[in-house]
Amino acid sequence: MDIATIARRVELERLYADYAHCLDADRLESWPDFFTEDCFYRVTSADNYAAGLPLGLIYATSRNMLIDRVRALREANIYEPQRYRHLVSSLRVLDETGAGVFEVEANFLVIRTMQEGDMTIFAAGRYVDRLVRADETWRFSRKEVVLDSHQIDTLLAIPL
Amino acid sequence: MDIATIARRVELERLYADYAHCLDADRLESWPDFFTEDCFYRVTSADNYAAGLPLGLIYATSRNMLIDRVRALREANIYEPQRYRHLVSSLRVLDETGAGVFEVEANFLVIRTMQEGDMTIFAAGRYVDRLVRADETWRFSRKEVVLDSHQIDTLLAIPL
Amino acid sequence: MDIATIARRVELERLYADYAHCLDADRLESWPDFFTEDCFYRVTSADNYAAGLPLGLIYATSRNMLIDRVRALREANIYEPQRYRHLVSSLRVLDETGAGVFEVEANFLVIRTMQEGDMTIFAAGRYVDRLVRADETWRFSRKEVVLDSHQIDTLLAIPL
Repeated sequence: MDIATIARRVELERLYADYAHCLDADRLESWPDFFTEDCFYRVTSADNYAAGLPLGLIYATSRNMLIDRVRALREANIYEPQRYRHLVSSLRVLDETGAGVFEVEANFLVIRTMQEGDMTIFAAGRYVDRLVRADETWRFSRKEVVLDSHQIDTLLAIPL
Repeated sequence: MDIATIARRVELERLYADYAHCLDADRLESWPDFFTEDCFYRVTSADNYAAGLPLGLIYATSRNMLIDRVRALREANIYEPQRYRHLVSSLRVLDETGAGVFEVEANFLVIRTMQEGDMTIFAAGRYVDRLVRADETWRFSRKEVVLDSHQIDTLLAIPL
Repeated sequence: MDIATIARRVELERLYADYAHCLDADRLESWPDFFTEDCFYRVTSADNYAAGLPLGLIYATSRNMLIDRVRALREANIYEPQRYRHLVSSLRVLDETGAGVFEVEANFLVIRTMQEGDMTIFAAGRYVDRLVRADETWRFSRKEVVLDSHQIDTLLAIPL
């Protein structure tokens, strides 16, 4: 394994760590910055994903739609005292699928802690992503959040 | 830390990621490929492991036994609509214990999602493994899945 | 990304893995060795942390206080048959904040397994740490364990 391959993996690990901390710290306004302008993003179930169904709990075909999503979440202003904690592991960087385009998979688990202290498994699944190198950083040109479960226990679907 | 040590760690992380995705995607037929022909594999409890007891929920002394295990699981044909999700972390590569032989430990957590969407902690524990470099890849010559719990809530013990 | 940056990240990942295995194996007497002599360590809640409150479930301003803490835990001799399992991910190495001083964040999840086999989420949160290079290894000069929850279900607060 050469140094360039290693450096890329370490950079991508850093990106996924930044992504998790951004969401867990509720810095949602920074979340769209992880994506390219013409990105594709959706949250879907493993069954829908396997069946090739285009449906999703969240579905966006541009960074602007992600920005709108965050605005809607803030305006809905539902008092949500819970905290979310992402655990991400088993990052797989697949071979280059285009010039500077890399496909990456990772497993995730999200724990929700309610204000009273009760902790539950909120979501588990895997990311199926495509990343491009742009402006000296990596951005998601495609991110599919594939949930092991059919549904999520939440009033308003949040970014995952 | 030299580049060879770093490259080895990154390669081993990739192997553990591939292993997790293989199991979580239910590609069980590919699972024995992660092992050497004369491998040792078992799933046991932390108490049994500490006491040096040879017992285990699954016990195999060759790759062929792992292949048989998968066949038995498929033939049993128990309808299991649940999904499993591995989270693996805290990978420790210990010093070389023989020519090209490395001992590795890692923590794992497996979340089970039932078809109705209910998610539970299925297993937690650590891997105590021995890996060898063969055919330009790493293979487990020994893998012990040491469960924190005494038992697992399942009809047929699945690979972990 | 240069080789020194990569090497540092790999070393720090190894440190966090060693730390998790030390606690999970109940080798508490080795736990203070991860810290500098004049370290700061505390376990606190996210709310207290955000409000800048100095309180904490555990609070120590030196390695000797950590050693005392372990002694107290052993002498209390509360029969605790449970096991703990740390999952640590999303390690972020922030820029050098002083000569050889690095700030690091990571997410963690701790699963508790009772003797009867029942597994629950014991703690979730993040580490907010400061590390220094000393004696050819890395040590925590500061470690804050920021819990997503207000409290922990335990009789005696254990190291996290």
